[in-house]
Amino acid sequence: MGQNLILNAADHGFKVVAFNRTVSKVDRFLAEEAKGKNIIGAHSIEDFVNKLKKPRRMMLLVMAGKPVDDFIDALLPFVEKGDIIIDGGNSHYPDTNRRTKALAEKGIRFVGTGVSGGEEGARYGPSLMPGGNEEAWPYIKDVFQSIAAKSDGEPCCDWVGDEGAGHYVKMVHNGIEYGDMQLICEAYDILKRGLGLHEKEIGDIFAEWNKGVLDSFLIEITRDVLRFMDDDGEPLVEKILDKAGQKGTGKWTAINALDLGMPVTLIGEAVFARCLSSLKDERVRASKKLSGPTHKFEGDKKEFIDNLEQALYASKIISYAQGFLLMQEAAKQYNWKLNKPSIALMWRGGCIIRSVFLKDITSAYRENPDLENLLFNDFFNKAIHTAQPGWRDIVSKGALWGIPTPAFSTALSFYDGLRSENLPASLLQAQRDYFGAHTFRIKPQFANKKYEEGKDIHVNWTGRGGNVSASTYQA
Amino acid sequence: MGQNLILNAADHGFKVVAFNRTVSKVDRFLAEEAKGKNIIGAHSIEDFVNKLKKPRRMMLLVMAGKPVDDFIDALLPFVEKGDIIIDGGNSHYPDTNRRTKALAEKGIRFVGTGVSGGEEGARYGPSLMPGGNEEAWPYIKDVFQSIAAKSDGEPCCDWVGDEGAGHYVKMVHNGIEYGDMQLICEAYDILKRGLGLHEKEIGDIFAEWNKGVLDSFLIEITRDVLRFMDDDGEPLVEKILDKAGQKGTGKWTAINALDLGMPVTLIGEAVFARCLSSLKDERVRASKKLSGPTHKFEGDKKEFIDNLEQALYASKIISYAQGFLLMQEAAKQYNWKLNKPSIALMWRGGCIIRSVFLKDITSAYRENPDLENLLFNDFFNKAIHTAQPGWRDIVSKGALWGIPTPAFSTALSFYDGLRSENLPASLLQAQRDYFGAHTFRIKPQFANKKYEEGKDIHVNWTGRGGNVSASTYQA
Repeated sequence: MGQNLILNAADHGFKVVAFNRTVSKVDRFLAEEAKGKNIIGAHSIEDFVNKLKKPRRMMLLVMAGKPVDDFIDALLPFVEKGDIIIDGGNSHYPDTNRRTKALAEKGIRFVGTGVSGGEEGARYGPSLMPGGNEEAWPYIKDVFQSIAAKSDGEPCCDWVGDEGAGHYVKMVHNGIEYGDMQLICEAYDILKRGLGLHEKEIGDIFAEWNKGVLDSFLIEITRDVLRFMDDDGEPLVEKILDKAGQKGTGKWTAINALDLGMPVTLIGEAVFARCLSSLKDERVRASKKLSGPTHKFEGDKKEFIDNLEQALYASKIISYAQGFLLMQEAAKQYNWKLNKPSIALMWRGGCIIRSVFLKDITSAYRENPDLENLLFNDFFNKAIHTAQPGWRDIVSKGALWGIPTPAFSTALSFYDGLRSENLPASLLQAQRDYFGAHTFRIKPQFANKKYEEGKDIHVNWTGRGGNVSASTYQA
Repeated sequence: MGQNLILNAADHGFKVVAFNRTVSKVDRFLAEEAKGKNIIGAHSIEDFVNKLKKPRRMMLLVMAGKPVDDFIDALLPFVEKGDIIIDGGNSHYPDTNRRTKALAEKGIRFVGTGVSGGEEGARYGPSLMPGGNEEAWPYIKDVFQSIAAKSDGEPCCDWVGDEGAGHYVKMVHNGIEYGDMQLICEAYDILKRGLGLHEKEIGDIFAEWNKGVLDSFLIEITRDVLRFMDDDGEPLVEKILDKAGQKGTGKWTAINALDLGMPVTLIGEAVFARCLSSLKDERVRASKKLSGPTHKFEGDKKEFIDNLEQALYASKIISYAQGFLLMQEAAKQYNWKLNKPSIALMWRGGCIIRSVFLKDITSAYRENPDLENLLFNDFFNKAIHTAQPGWRDIVSKGALWGIPTPAFSTALSFYDGLRSENLPASLLQAQRDYFGAHTFRIKPQFANKKYEEGKDIHVNWTGRGGNVSASTYQA
């Protein structure tokens, strides 16, 4: 990753100093990939620091966690006030908060930046999401925006916000990536088990979808994967062990959503779906003990596939709406200024979730940077209403056919919950007051002298007196 | 809570010393509720400790967090080796882990116990879930099992396990409580918005359900709540502000599930449903901008209500199966010996989730303490297969009618995922290998020389070379 970023920067006319603790790697890099380019090597940290122009701009690409702290500690004896240290790893944002503050106290400007797009992205144009000490931005803007991916000529990189905001946005990006991948898997499963299609046919469907509203990197590579045949002519994908791995960022996003009290249900289900996939041995045993319905598809296949496209599209809109709600709440809670149109733009190109879809999100937030909810934007509002009948058809068929659709379903429940002026949580509050005297409040339109608006009210539900849990129930 | 536990213990023939930092409260308690009972007061911590028989058994009921540590610190100067300190608050289990270890080093036996059942439970029989330093158990067993709720003559209290195991099990109990309440809310919502029934009619349905497989405290109080009319003759529940509160234990359970990588989806959705309910203002605005389908119920109401009962029952089975899977994994990860039949027994009476259902769970784990999954037990296996058609009908109708069923739906998706020998996670692994060279493994039955079993395999998906992300996709 580091080598590719260096080559990328050199190609854009920047002179770069390369350093690695394993000095032989530096020499080999200079002799091979970096040969003939404007790249100098350093053989020690001191050498590295001394070769840099002031204020120094030093970017680390090391494993998240302790290695980042260790490297910063190693740099500190040689750097000067005003120098800039950039962490380009997948650090957890609370660490970046801490480092930004601690280094600011020493006069060092710290930046934590999300980098997405894999090795090829790093080499030819990643999505970059820098945050931290904003004083550093004028010094790094040019190089960051030069090496970043471009979308319609605009760089997929802008200043995200204070402290760990850059790494935070990268974390949410990864969570959304988990969601997108899960949605694609559910669509594949429905086409395979629901319609009984072969991978080649499904690949063709994804190829079609890639020309429409779903046009994106992940749909494109799904097409390629489904068309990839093993030597025996069978689809390789069927032979791959169905235990999904994870690197933790999806989990971090779900935990953060729980901590902030935001219903980011689709990412949550996507993470749990990976967990369930990992229980392969348990599933194999369960498959012999738990049966489901049988079905035979009768109907218009073309119409069903169109409905599925709409279900995928609508669920994706919900997932991004949830992701932006989460970032909005984080900005409020952590006192960050997050630039929503810029975030959408940064995700448009270079990264794993890059898509035409993000172009529409960028437009939505450019039109109204204070847009409360993506679903309130005219374009997406129309889109979700158009998609709705097909989406409902797919979720209901999945339930009847016995094909799991955790992400499609949770997206639909969220949509139906969000558009409910009244939810049955009123009953839940009554239950809590009944057994634990937790009190409730009254809906404003029903407030009166007995039940005042904004007051914590307790009712004696059983008429048996006492301010406490009360029931005759005996198990 | 503390007062009620003291009265409960005194009623069972134990002599109790009462102390509160606000000394006047002690005097008032002795003069009123405790009058004529075998209860002595203490006016200082030293006084409290000195009045106790050795080894001293001291139980704290203070707010979770720092107050527990503060109180322990205040006790320490006066206690002796072998004494027992019990924390009966809602402490987070990692704190209990820490305290058990720290106090063991000082020769003090620490116990963290879950206490459930509210004030009335504390007074007349709570569910008690003690864990920590097992040396303490012989000294407290008699009093704990005497004051605990009884179910078929058996005390709803047994030793749970090491360190924070007691508080851990209490946390999962609360998470399951969140799930049970959410399921009941969804059933209420479907009866109200789906069938258009009045609260009185719905109350009658819950009364009926309380005579069958759903027989439980929460169903019973729901019946009472629905039948509770305001002065104007309208159901009070409709007037209650539909923003659900939470005290954090449900959230802790969901976060722990994510950390342990266990798909405890129902509790996760229940917590997120509370979060969504809290966004009341947002929902009111959304209700004006987002529309849904209209429907008219045509069909057999009686049959539909029976299906709903089955959906609720099946989802509840899934939720408990998930909860026990989580505790099983925690036992493994944290190296605790958790006694599953005892846990089910402890929850059978005294606590909020008490039910006939937990009697069946107790039987299942008594029959086979090593039962891998609740769904593999004959009784529950039969129950879920019987419930299945109705359950699928409800989930599919909820989707088509536009009534949110996040918990019913996620339970069904979990069931269908668990019984899937093959999940589409194979595609997900292929995608990860495609864009990030994350590698995959081969299903054993397809292993050969090229793709060896248990080896990390990378494939060049595009045929364009290189071990890295590769795609032509441009957004």
